[in-house]
Amino acid sequence: MAETKVDAILPVVLCGGTGTRLWPVSREGMAKQLLPIIGERTLLQMTLDRVAGRGYAAPMVIGSHPVRFTIRDQVEAVAPGARVVIEPERRDTLAAVLLAAAIAEAEDPAQVLAVMPSDHLIRDGGAFDAAIRTATARVRETGIAVIGVKPGEPSSAYGYVRPGAPAGAGAFRVAQFVEKPAEERARRLIFEGCLWNAGIFCFRAGWLMEAARAMLPEAAARIGEAVAAMRPDLGMLVPGAAFARIKPISFDHAFMERTDQAVVVPADFSWSDVGDWNAVWAAAEKDAAGNAVRGPGVVREAHDTLVHSEGRLVCALGVEGLAIIDTPDALLVAPRARAQEVKALVGDLRAAGRPEATEHIRNHRPWGWYQTVDLGDRFRVKRIVVKPGAKLSLQRHHHRAEHWVVVRGTAEVTLDGTVKELHENESIYIAIGAVHRLANPGRIPVEIIEVQTGTYLEEDDIERLEDEFGRL
Amino acid sequence: MAETKVDAILPVVLCGGTGTRLWPVSREGMAKQLLPIIGERTLLQMTLDRVAGRGYAAPMVIGSHPVRFTIRDQVEAVAPGARVVIEPERRDTLAAVLLAAAIAEAEDPAQVLAVMPSDHLIRDGGAFDAAIRTATARVRETGIAVIGVKPGEPSSAYGYVRPGAPAGAGAFRVAQFVEKPAEERARRLIFEGCLWNAGIFCFRAGWLMEAARAMLPEAAARIGEAVAAMRPDLGMLVPGAAFARIKPISFDHAFMERTDQAVVVPADFSWSDVGDWNAVWAAAEKDAAGNAVRGPGVVREAHDTLVHSEGRLVCALGVEGLAIIDTPDALLVAPRARAQEVKALVGDLRAAGRPEATEHIRNHRPWGWYQTVDLGDRFRVKRIVVKPGAKLSLQRHHHRAEHWVVVRGTAEVTLDGTVKELHENESIYIAIGAVHRLANPGRIPVEIIEVQTGTYLEEDDIERLEDEFGRL
Repeated sequence: MAETKVDAILPVVLCGGTGTRLWPVSREGMAKQLLPIIGERTLLQMTLDRVAGRGYAAPMVIGSHPVRFTIRDQVEAVAPGARVVIEPERRDTLAAVLLAAAIAEAEDPAQVLAVMPSDHLIRDGGAFDAAIRTATARVRETGIAVIGVKPGEPSSAYGYVRPGAPAGAGAFRVAQFVEKPAEERARRLIFEGCLWNAGIFCFRAGWLMEAARAMLPEAAARIGEAVAAMRPDLGMLVPGAAFARIKPISFDHAFMERTDQAVVVPADFSWSDVGDWNAVWAAAEKDAAGNAVRGPGVVREAHDTLVHSEGRLVCALGVEGLAIIDTPDALLVAPRARAQEVKALVGDLRAAGRPEATEHIRNHRPWGWYQTVDLGDRFRVKRIVVKPGAKLSLQRHHHRAEHWVVVRGTAEVTLDGTVKELHENESIYIAIGAVHRLANPGRIPVEIIEVQTGTYLEEDDIERLEDEFGRL
Repeated sequence: MAETKVDAILPVVLCGGTGTRLWPVSREGMAKQLLPIIGERTLLQMTLDRVAGRGYAAPMVIGSHPVRFTIRDQVEAVAPGARVVIEPERRDTLAAVLLAAAIAEAEDPAQVLAVMPSDHLIRDGGAFDAAIRTATARVRETGIAVIGVKPGEPSSAYGYVRPGAPAGAGAFRVAQFVEKPAEERARRLIFEGCLWNAGIFCFRAGWLMEAARAMLPEAAARIGEAVAAMRPDLGMLVPGAAFARIKPISFDHAFMERTDQAVVVPADFSWSDVGDWNAVWAAAEKDAAGNAVRGPGVVREAHDTLVHSEGRLVCALGVEGLAIIDTPDALLVAPRARAQEVKALVGDLRAAGRPEATEHIRNHRPWGWYQTVDLGDRFRVKRIVVKPGAKLSLQRHHHRAEHWVVVRGTAEVTLDGTVKELHENESIYIAIGAVHRLANPGRIPVEIIEVQTGTYLEEDDIERLEDEFGRL
């Protein structure tokens, strides 16, 4: 096979999903693609790694607003040249794919895109790359290609695609898309040669936008407006307000199932959507007894069990087929076979008003993060980490005083108009009502232990007077 | 039945056990009788409650040295007049029983004792009291009586006692003691009328000491020396060094199985040794599906499961027959049916050098307690609670500085010879090498957040210059 030149291929990574089935690790406030579920890097970073060093263009990442700084930082760490485009509101995948296509079309209608989810696991980068080359070669002029992965088992958690007549080198017309089937049906589909729909699409920017203007004129028009009004913001790109007026619908439903220009490119690589804890177990490295242990876990006479610990000692004794998922503020114990029910459990917890259902204990902010480490009757202790060069808002509190102790790095503290540098092992007192600001003028993160005292210690007791991140 | 006068009965509560089968809640450093495993009070306190308000003498509690302050505080809280006797070293139950008998004999050889474990659960206080009255009436002149509990199931976790010929009102000669049998044997024993040996013995002080001098002369002599050298210490009684020279052996083996003066008093009350998590589940209140939940636990489609949480949200989804035991630094997940294997697991953990095997994260001290709430590269954050009137040692550290913020109460801080009062929301800095002392001059506990910085932050960086608790 002659090698196809891929320099022109623009990888587009969709990073807007939530993924509550991986609760308590993945929560609404920080979805699974932004977390190191498997390995040291996050799934988003693993996705970016997959298209690095193979001659692709610098990727475009489409993410959502609440986690924009986390996305930006994770992308910068592994793919410095990548663009991060932030959806002002979540609008499902049609809007995200059109957004990428419209941005690319404005630059060069001949640009070929490879759109892929940020939260899937693919072990064989070479086979993935080969499939993308085959698919992009096929759509350089016209049409859209979807990667069809050879099924490993009759999963009822995935959608399937049925290949039809041959349509050029390595491609077949799409005869049918099949939504998540029951296991029996899945068996038959596999027997009939159907493939898993891995949610990876390749097309030429100009072709897709033309097709969208014909088939989905309203969405295409909104996207046009949104891209025309797009502006850079803190190292990211934010489309205009028209984006939020697009009807939320998936790209599969709105476009793929309706076009007659779709082809499927069969591929054979290990693929998982890492959709629940059972999938995580399946994808993880296991010992001889089938146990996968992440973090400080100890298994004794246990079998086929997934242990995920984020710090505490987790001991699984004599259990079989369980998922034990331990985070600083919430624990899940469930049979792997019932991992799909976690979503309903999280729904119950949300209905009961449990904050653990949606929020993580570590709160990411544009300037770094903070986490409550102790909480008493009229006091709260936080660890605060500020990135090099970052600056919190100029602020004051009406109900609490704060004691700061610098435990790492150098902090620049503004207090009632005076600016002072605080080094490791130095402290300062912020009285109730005092106007203050914390910044990191240094080259390493600054870490602070904050002891708050007062009768009301919630986050909403904050009056912001100046802010670099537009949060006034 | 004529009511027996019980004014003279001295309850002796044995509080020296460890109980690693209830790990991670019970650990060597703080055994199960000192923890609220079931209900709000600890098992020790529930034991003391059982003999309160029924005309018994003020109890005597025999405990071990490492946890003496915890025992003292728990006893004071529910049984202010009780005596606490501290074994300088653990020497098993023969030494503990003889110690109580020798102390009582020195006061009045006619004193009748009722010796009972501190870590058992008895729900029916009236039936317990009636059994004690029957037993003590029988031994007022001679002999020893053991309470035999009517077995609830053919347990292989308990020892059995076989009643022989009648021996006065409500008592039978002991025909045989049977060690923990296999289940099949246990069934037969129950069929034959055997009873559970509940570890509760009644005897007259003078009688037991005379019998011990004849049967166990060396142990009796050592006890005599130890009691002669006994001295009061910080509200407790500490026998002399001879105590540590007694051979460790159980009272059952050394005395009960060898005397021909033992009778058994059958009793029918709900009794459990709370010996493992399965026993805790059996003793706990359960929902319709058989789940027992303590703390913030959520069960969904779970059955016959024990959830114990000390703070975090614990979710058990679709599991059956499990024990899920969650503590701030360690988690156990095991089938209830394999609860006895926890002991071996803890042995593994100890061998692997895991501190969680033996030590709790909250460290009890004579003056109160402390707990690490955050730990970083070169810093550690502790919450420190000092009891009203208590005082830490005058001390200094060679490798760390400390920042203290008072978050509750009033602290008296001595720093390089100067004494200062610190109120809520005030802070102070203790430089490396500074001589300092923390005390609570007030009437409510004082709580302090301590931020330590330095390159070495372990407990052994402490030089004590003065100490109220003899820890120089």
